Amino acid sequence: MTTSSAEAAIAAIQFDSGGLVPAIAQQHDTGEVLMMAWMNREAVAETLATGRVCYWSRSRGALWRKGETSGQTQRLVDLRIDCDGDTLLLLVDQTGVACHTGKRRCFFRRVGAAGLEDVAMGAVDPEALYGKAGA
Amino acid sequence: MTTSSAEAAIAAIQFDSGGLVPAIAQQHDTGEVLMMAWMNREAVAETLATGRVCYWSRSRGALWRKGETSGQTQRLVDLRIDCDGDTLLLLVDQTGVACHTGKRRCFFRRVGAAGLEDVAMGAVDPEALYGKAGA
Repeated sequence: MTTSSAEAAIAAIQFDSGGLVPAIAQQHDTGEVLMMAWMNREAVAETLATGRVCYWSRSRGALWRKGETSGQTQRLVDLRIDCDGDTLLLLVDQTGVACHTGKRRCFFRRVGAAGLEDVAMGAVDPEALYGKAGA
Repeated sequence: MTTSSAEAAIAAIQFDSGGLVPAIAQQHDTGEVLMMAWMNREAVAETLATGRVCYWSRSRGALWRKGETSGQTQRLVDLRIDCDGDTLLLLVDQTGVACHTGKRRCFFRRVGAAGLEDVAMGAVDPEALYGKAGA
């Protein structure tokens, strides 16, 4: 990705009043919607420069290099910008699982006739990703 | 969808300080990510009750019954809630096109080596959806 291309992309993005834009991560080949998180200008620039997805963590108030702790990284395959410029779609290649719960995708709950139900989805033990709770 | 099931779903959603939650619409069978928009409690309740997707229009400050003007409705197939409860994934059956530009999906621009490029995607004339501009 050239610097000028990244600059053109960032100029087309309508960041909100907090300087953020929602970014949907979709597995590029299977079409699975993995997660949604937020990016600021710096996160978009770093993602385009490195090809490795970096978000902005609203809870930590810091750049969040996806997989830095868990190893479950996302390689950027393509970055899409919507018609209004206020939402991003990241086509990625997800290593392992996207969700901190150990599930492949964050959207594992569905609204069923009797209330919320888990969607069948393989999972790994979060402790295997992050170590013991709190570690 | 039963009322109690809808209530359980709404109770699990973490609406933001403005009472909204982002909702990603994905075509249920092809996996296409069509658009992202926002919902409030009333929009979620109406969508679950009618099976026809209703968003909240932030620009108009009103419920936005998708396709009410254009005819390009979305039938709800499944509603998913993410791990944190702060993002929804709507699996839908989209009639026609999702985007107000006449494109099938809103994410029709990609970041290429030379800047933004349009992704090849069939489109219909917006005038065919909405009539003459401003009408």
